[in-house]
Amino acid sequence: MIIDDLLSADLRKIGSASPLVHNITNFVVMNNTANALLCLGASPVMAHARDEVEDMTAIAAALVINVGTLSAEWVESMSLAMKAAERRGIPIVYDPVGAGATPFRNSVNLRLLGEVSPTIIRGNGSEIMALEAAFANSTGVATKGVDSTRGSEAALEAALAISARLGSTVVISGKTDYIVSNDEISTNDHGVSLMARVTGMGCTATALCGAFVAINPSPHIAARHAMMTMGIAAEQAYRTSQAPGSFQVSFLDALYVMSHQS
Amino acid sequence: MIIDDLLSADLRKIGSASPLVHNITNFVVMNNTANALLCLGASPVMAHARDEVEDMTAIAAALVINVGTLSAEWVESMSLAMKAAERRGIPIVYDPVGAGATPFRNSVNLRLLGEVSPTIIRGNGSEIMALEAAFANSTGVATKGVDSTRGSEAALEAALAISARLGSTVVISGKTDYIVSNDEISTNDHGVSLMARVTGMGCTATALCGAFVAINPSPHIAARHAMMTMGIAAEQAYRTSQAPGSFQVSFLDALYVMSHQS
Amino acid sequence: MIIDDLLSADLRKIGSASPLVHNITNFVVMNNTANALLCLGASPVMAHARDEVEDMTAIAAALVINVGTLSAEWVESMSLAMKAAERRGIPIVYDPVGAGATPFRNSVNLRLLGEVSPTIIRGNGSEIMALEAAFANSTGVATKGVDSTRGSEAALEAALAISARLGSTVVISGKTDYIVSNDEISTNDHGVSLMARVTGMGCTATALCGAFVAINPSPHIAARHAMMTMGIAAEQAYRTSQAPGSFQVSFLDALYVMSHQS
Repeated sequence: MIIDDLLSADLRKIGSASPLVHNITNFVVMNNTANALLCLGASPVMAHARDEVEDMTAIAAALVINVGTLSAEWVESMSLAMKAAERRGIPIVYDPVGAGATPFRNSVNLRLLGEVSPTIIRGNGSEIMALEAAFANSTGVATKGVDSTRGSEAALEAALAISARLGSTVVISGKTDYIVSNDEISTNDHGVSLMARVTGMGCTATALCGAFVAINPSPHIAARHAMMTMGIAAEQAYRTSQAPGSFQVSFLDALYVMSHQS
Repeated sequence: MIIDDLLSADLRKIGSASPLVHNITNFVVMNNTANALLCLGASPVMAHARDEVEDMTAIAAALVINVGTLSAEWVESMSLAMKAAERRGIPIVYDPVGAGATPFRNSVNLRLLGEVSPTIIRGNGSEIMALEAAFANSTGVATKGVDSTRGSEAALEAALAISARLGSTVVISGKTDYIVSNDEISTNDHGVSLMARVTGMGCTATALCGAFVAINPSPHIAARHAMMTMGIAAEQAYRTSQAPGSFQVSFLDALYVMSHQS
Repeated sequence: MIIDDLLSADLRKIGSASPLVHNITNFVVMNNTANALLCLGASPVMAHARDEVEDMTAIAAALVINVGTLSAEWVESMSLAMKAAERRGIPIVYDPVGAGATPFRNSVNLRLLGEVSPTIIRGNGSEIMALEAAFANSTGVATKGVDSTRGSEAALEAALAISARLGSTVVISGKTDYIVSNDEISTNDHGVSLMARVTGMGCTATALCGAFVAINPSPHIAARHAMMTMGIAAEQAYRTSQAPGSFQVSFLDALYVMSHQS
């Protein structure tokens, strides 16, 4: 594996600082994301109780919010944790899983993102477009809707609009990943298509954004490094494993090796 | 692997249609079942919030209900989702995990199955017998109870009774799987005993019933194809892995290969 | 693998008795711990609903309580299950995950351990020290606090204090594991440092304590056997897998092989 120097430096920082990453995430991927963070040397903690999320966020170096298997009670905890993070200047990464799938998801995204602007938002193209459509509809602005024929171009427009609206760095995951900040667009082409056949790879990318933004003051570079790490580890894993079961095992191994070779 | 033509055709349909399978399932197996569905090319979604289950079911091609780690709140969501599926003619697969273990489980099964008849019910022999015993007790009919000495014969009687009662196809998982509809009984002998040492293999079978019934109008054939797929993939996995950790990794790989060779 | 005779005897007992181990545990590790228990031949069940925990505990051979992803509702269920276990003389294993991280965690630990004394408590050094500090603070006794410079010596003092206070066997996981009962201290040096890079290895150790205490009347020996089993399986796994993804797969395989070679 060839890893660029800046990414190597960040991987070393994660390994030495072992930042505590507080995740309020979905049931499907908790195990995957905890393991991916551990492979890089970060310290994951999963805690969602209303009675403790603010205290847990307060001792964390980053907060990761993922609405995959949301419920009304968890949304209250997410809201409290995001506000606590904002008060203390702790970076927040937000994953709008399934944005647009149901009215409830749209209303939750609008509420949480209306209360606090995350440092980084990561989703796939359709989620980012659905998120922007929800914003536009809620503010009475006409939206072009989700136009799949326009593909990544439309997603990029949506990401730029969200970034301008919230001041967040927005990541669109896909064959090419786009990292979009107000004044900068980066891309990442590392990765393999098999990633789409393993549940939680997107959520893992979000969690890794948390690890990088915990130790790098630039959200844009942190997000780019997270996406590069995902892609490089996936390419490495694919060399030994071409089916989803063994691929996800090799992927964790590759994250660990990347971290140790940096 | 030798796969029969009808099963191959269904595997190809799942791969090309990528049916959305809405799962309200237990915490232990969410990751496994999502991955198994992805390996076949289906699109799993896990969502349980009362505020969105009806909307999520409405856009799904099948609904999978699994009461493994149930709670009162989740039961309400299961009820809403099952009713939404019935209204729209979306097939429902039901897994009475742990039926008979506690009075609460019995009452939940009676309530949910009293409200809506699933398209397919899948359990092991003791769960199917416990389910029928609960029905019989609740209606004042004398039941022979769970007589373990009568083995699969007693489970088969219970499955026939449930199928007659609800009009559902009932699957009994075991060394030989029985697929029981009102007018037809099929068997599947594919499989390996090591499956019992991996958590969630039964729940995965239930989820695969969801993928097949999403694309095949015959619940009986869909259920048989799901059980055959489980068994054939397990036999294939066992050729390379004879212990539970590596076996479950190879099992996912085998599902993916089956899907791609069809 | 060389396994001592007493451990072999206990592994055979677990395999033949297949004790039902009722787990109320955290979302991150449910899959891991269920699989580890299955690899040894135990029967795991995960159930947390207030409506059924007492009934489920009543049919179990051991109860495992793990507060990793706790919430107010789950704490009520834990309390009910622990009381049901105590009433029936069913051994209880308690894992104070993240003790000391938040005031809520401290108050939950004090409440649950104030209501019922577990048979075994297992945590890492900082959790055991935080637990004892919480006890001491709550009773107005001055505490030296968590003094990381004193390392395992301070943890051992805390374990002895907790054991004296509650009558529980207390396990400190670490490079060397300490098993502490009122009148006896044992150690286990089996294990590899890579275990710390896999999520839920501590929780798995706790679950295995449940399997062993279900079939061995001595909590001290049961806990020691559980820790030895963890360590020996980890050493075996490390021979084939030196990175976290494949290591955790090999670890499950090694548990299964240990169980079958005993």
